[in-house]
Amino acid sequence: MPTYTAPITDQIFVLEDVLGVSRQDIPGYEDMDRDTLTAILDEAGKLASDVLNPLNPVGDTMGCVLENGVVRTPTGFKEAFDQMREGGWTALDCDPDYGGQGLPYVVATAVGEQFSAANMAFNMYPGLTHGAYSAIHAHGTDAQKEMYLPKMVTCEWTGTMNLTEPHCGTDLGLMRTKAVPQDDGTYKVTGQKIFISAGDHDMSENVIHLVLAKIPGGPEGIKGVSLFIVPKFIIEDGKPGARNGVSVGKIEEKMGIHGNSTCVMNYDEATGYLLGEEHKGMRAMFTMMNEARVGVGLQGYAQAEVAYQNALAYAKDRLQGRDVTGVKNPDGPADPLIVHPDIRRNLMDQKSFVEGARAFAYWGANLIDRSHRCDDAAAHGLVSLMTPVIKGFLTDKGFEMATNAQQVYGGHGYIEEWGMSQFARDARIAMIYEGANGVQALDLVGRKLAQDGGKHVMAFFAQVTDFIKETKGRSDSFDKDFREPLKAASKDLQAAGMFFMQNGMKNPNAALSGSYDFMHLMGHVCLGLMWAKMAVVAEDKLAEGAGDADFYKTKIATGRYYMARQLPMTTTHLRRIESGAETVMALDAEAF
Amino acid sequence: MPTYTAPITDQIFVLEDVLGVSRQDIPGYEDMDRDTLTAILDEAGKLASDVLNPLNPVGDTMGCVLENGVVRTPTGFKEAFDQMREGGWTALDCDPDYGGQGLPYVVATAVGEQFSAANMAFNMYPGLTHGAYSAIHAHGTDAQKEMYLPKMVTCEWTGTMNLTEPHCGTDLGLMRTKAVPQDDGTYKVTGQKIFISAGDHDMSENVIHLVLAKIPGGPEGIKGVSLFIVPKFIIEDGKPGARNGVSVGKIEEKMGIHGNSTCVMNYDEATGYLLGEEHKGMRAMFTMMNEARVGVGLQGYAQAEVAYQNALAYAKDRLQGRDVTGVKNPDGPADPLIVHPDIRRNLMDQKSFVEGARAFAYWGANLIDRSHRCDDAAAHGLVSLMTPVIKGFLTDKGFEMATNAQQVYGGHGYIEEWGMSQFARDARIAMIYEGANGVQALDLVGRKLAQDGGKHVMAFFAQVTDFIKETKGRSDSFDKDFREPLKAASKDLQAAGMFFMQNGMKNPNAALSGSYDFMHLMGHVCLGLMWAKMAVVAEDKLAEGAGDADFYKTKIATGRYYMARQLPMTTTHLRRIESGAETVMALDAEAF
Repeated sequence: MPTYTAPITDQIFVLEDVLGVSRQDIPGYEDMDRDTLTAILDEAGKLASDVLNPLNPVGDTMGCVLENGVVRTPTGFKEAFDQMREGGWTALDCDPDYGGQGLPYVVATAVGEQFSAANMAFNMYPGLTHGAYSAIHAHGTDAQKEMYLPKMVTCEWTGTMNLTEPHCGTDLGLMRTKAVPQDDGTYKVTGQKIFISAGDHDMSENVIHLVLAKIPGGPEGIKGVSLFIVPKFIIEDGKPGARNGVSVGKIEEKMGIHGNSTCVMNYDEATGYLLGEEHKGMRAMFTMMNEARVGVGLQGYAQAEVAYQNALAYAKDRLQGRDVTGVKNPDGPADPLIVHPDIRRNLMDQKSFVEGARAFAYWGANLIDRSHRCDDAAAHGLVSLMTPVIKGFLTDKGFEMATNAQQVYGGHGYIEEWGMSQFARDARIAMIYEGANGVQALDLVGRKLAQDGGKHVMAFFAQVTDFIKETKGRSDSFDKDFREPLKAASKDLQAAGMFFMQNGMKNPNAALSGSYDFMHLMGHVCLGLMWAKMAVVAEDKLAEGAGDADFYKTKIATGRYYMARQLPMTTTHLRRIESGAETVMALDAEAF
Repeated sequence: MPTYTAPITDQIFVLEDVLGVSRQDIPGYEDMDRDTLTAILDEAGKLASDVLNPLNPVGDTMGCVLENGVVRTPTGFKEAFDQMREGGWTALDCDPDYGGQGLPYVVATAVGEQFSAANMAFNMYPGLTHGAYSAIHAHGTDAQKEMYLPKMVTCEWTGTMNLTEPHCGTDLGLMRTKAVPQDDGTYKVTGQKIFISAGDHDMSENVIHLVLAKIPGGPEGIKGVSLFIVPKFIIEDGKPGARNGVSVGKIEEKMGIHGNSTCVMNYDEATGYLLGEEHKGMRAMFTMMNEARVGVGLQGYAQAEVAYQNALAYAKDRLQGRDVTGVKNPDGPADPLIVHPDIRRNLMDQKSFVEGARAFAYWGANLIDRSHRCDDAAAHGLVSLMTPVIKGFLTDKGFEMATNAQQVYGGHGYIEEWGMSQFARDARIAMIYEGANGVQALDLVGRKLAQDGGKHVMAFFAQVTDFIKETKGRSDSFDKDFREPLKAASKDLQAAGMFFMQNGMKNPNAALSGSYDFMHLMGHVCLGLMWAKMAVVAEDKLAEGAGDADFYKTKIATGRYYMARQLPMTTTHLRRIESGAETVMALDAEAF
């Protein structure tokens, strides 16, 4: 059975040594010194390894079951959720006014990485609740906030997001669910929503659904969509009272995340309460989009992390074949898999991705903190630009790496009992939900690049360029192994941006045909930047003789691998982008 | 529910227009004119679409069940197998001396593509039987051939291959199963074998296991391995008689191919008959390796083909969003997905891969025919070189494309009911079995490149170079769209080969660290060559005003896409290869 160990040293390295969290001037950050961070991550890690991780295969095998209208979660989930609640883990970065602990989002992100790696399907229950919490926190009336938030902070009541309908996913303007205003100021919500994660279950007293619906007579399409709070049990005197008109149609059979109840939800004149303004439902949803999408990006690399940990253990343990350069395990019948260069290549791909991805995701979370807690418009703009890259790139690569980890096991990787298949199957959804990755690419190229006159992408380019300037002449090895490759990759990125500027205006398809490649190109540049920054820190630490030299040497070696073996993908992405729309759009739809 | 339509026009295009099967001087080919091929593929296509394909989700959902020592296959499998037998489909390329039809292997490959696409798990039952048939045909005594082959040609008796044991997969020298000689010339076989596809089931009278085992006192390691025929029921008077000492330990729970019974097989003093010579078991297995591995490569792109067909249908049908260049479906609430450039990119990736892969696989099958039927050593050498590429590249890309097809469906792609998950889950195994793809890369770079003094790889390079020379000056468009990109890609391939020659001798790891990239680099060059050849044929057909002009134009457009968007990967592969072993092997095993 797979195991999981929270990579606390690596997490602290990014939080404290690279980002310098405790030295950043953001409210709440000042208390986050190395000891405090270590204490938090250590405790979270125990919950992840000892409680959540053993339930991961249980959730996969048992799944959720709908019986007489009631959803039963897998054995042990409820007890684990109680432990999570009691430990205060659901309240980590929530508002102290509603019972939260007020810790930085970046710290909650590090904890979330652990929980997601240990049990992705499980962690979606508090994860979705947090999303709904954020929406009510940002757009609710004081009365709504007082009514719902304290219970959602503790996850005594959990939350959901209801967007998709059978005939519309990305194109929410086609939505049919309607909300009819009543004399008492409430609405009657009627319609069917699908793919509702954590839609119903037996682990909380109440489920607070956030539902997108159209008020009859409102504007056509996406501009006529409003957001409603539809509790499973209507709140009476602060407690769940009468059953509302919402029921589970069925639980979907999915490729993975079986431990999470993905429901078809039927609303039949359910009582709903407007959240925010009429017809401004999409705006309310978008408020929490950056955070939600960063959270999905995190799921992507978290699955890669846990899959990597197990693949590594297997590669060290499994004896098969001999090292071509000389026997390494003369007393055994064969050498461990890890002696073989192609196994190394595979493991280094995984390792260098996961560690780079972690730095990238934490950097994004840090920007979200800066945006929310310091009202920093530049940080907000930059993280908005980065969000589709964090979501799209980290989930694509996360799935790829989970699949690669499965490959290390040979035939055993395909057998469910060994658990590697689950990592790949679970990771697969992250490429799809919260906006399929093609939609992320469209958001990036069609919207974010040009946002505020292209200011944010220019700011990002400037960050990279400044870094390259600042690190000039550090050392020959840094120059060759990090600085030059980063420079070349960022040149590719800028060339791609230039191609879009020159061609996208007269032919939008010329840009959109390259959108997916651009998302990946930018992802590689971001990870390249992260690795170069990590290398600088590691080199400095080594120079000052700090701590564990082997740790920093390993960091540099892992970074060098990424720069040499992964970053060159930017060239191919650029080539594809520059080939434009012509070959992509050459065929009529009928000719396919 | 997904559907499948045999792509007969595309298949005939490769067989007849590109390969010119009926014009090739190979025994059995002369009868394979366009009409005959069409008739065969048409009939096979009906079986695939009407019988096998509807059973694909049935097999996935029901799986195989072990009850009181008996394996039950999913509902409908037995009847379908009867239909397949009655149609003579199991006997297609088998030896007429034993009841086979003696058709070319390349034709059986085209039929196999259809059956695999329609139902991969199902088609493994006759597929494994064919492998066992080939081994007995090549190495059996006359008595053995007469005893087993006629029944295996009809699949009244099916076959299996027993190689892997719990502690050894790739490294078969570690094998523990033993075969103790008896006075009557038979052997008592004892041991446990795992991952035995089609290991047992209720669709045939008998199962003929081919089992690798060690005769006590023989040479150590791989040189002491022999191959045995171990029938489930011992043959008495030409009929299955007494039960042999072989039983099913369990059926493995797998990620996919649930319709195939993957068994743990326990041998307990089972009576075995030596096949071929003592201690020459590996040689006997290798005889059929090229064929078996080409067959797995075929599974890879066949899953991509059927996944593509369904993704395409969904992209034409599903209305979501509007074409940014102008509304395409003004009467509907939205435009079909296929208007969006990123959906096109995805579909074109799939289409251009599948069609290129088909040409590559048929070319390989054609070389196998030439090697077997004409004793052509050059063809044998070339296909031996190509085999790991066909297996490794086509299954890696096949899985990737099946995953991409799933992505077109958005959330529905993740729901089992829609069937796209099954294609990805089924395709995943092809990267693992019959030698994991890392082992294919090792075989290619560590063995095949240097085989016979590098003669075969030089012959391949010469083929590409000759083609580039011959097509000089055809037309500006061919030059720009096909010839130049192929030239650049083949230059990358030769540079990679040169790097290995210059570095691999003094440091084998320098070559082996790049083996996986080399396998993919070579795969791209092969598909590039196939596309360039297909474009030549299509251009010529257009010039002579033959047949369906739209078909040939679409071929050229699809090929141009491959050359512009996929082939540039060679650059990145070369960059990785040339970065050598240093970053790959930098870390001690303990430092990971």
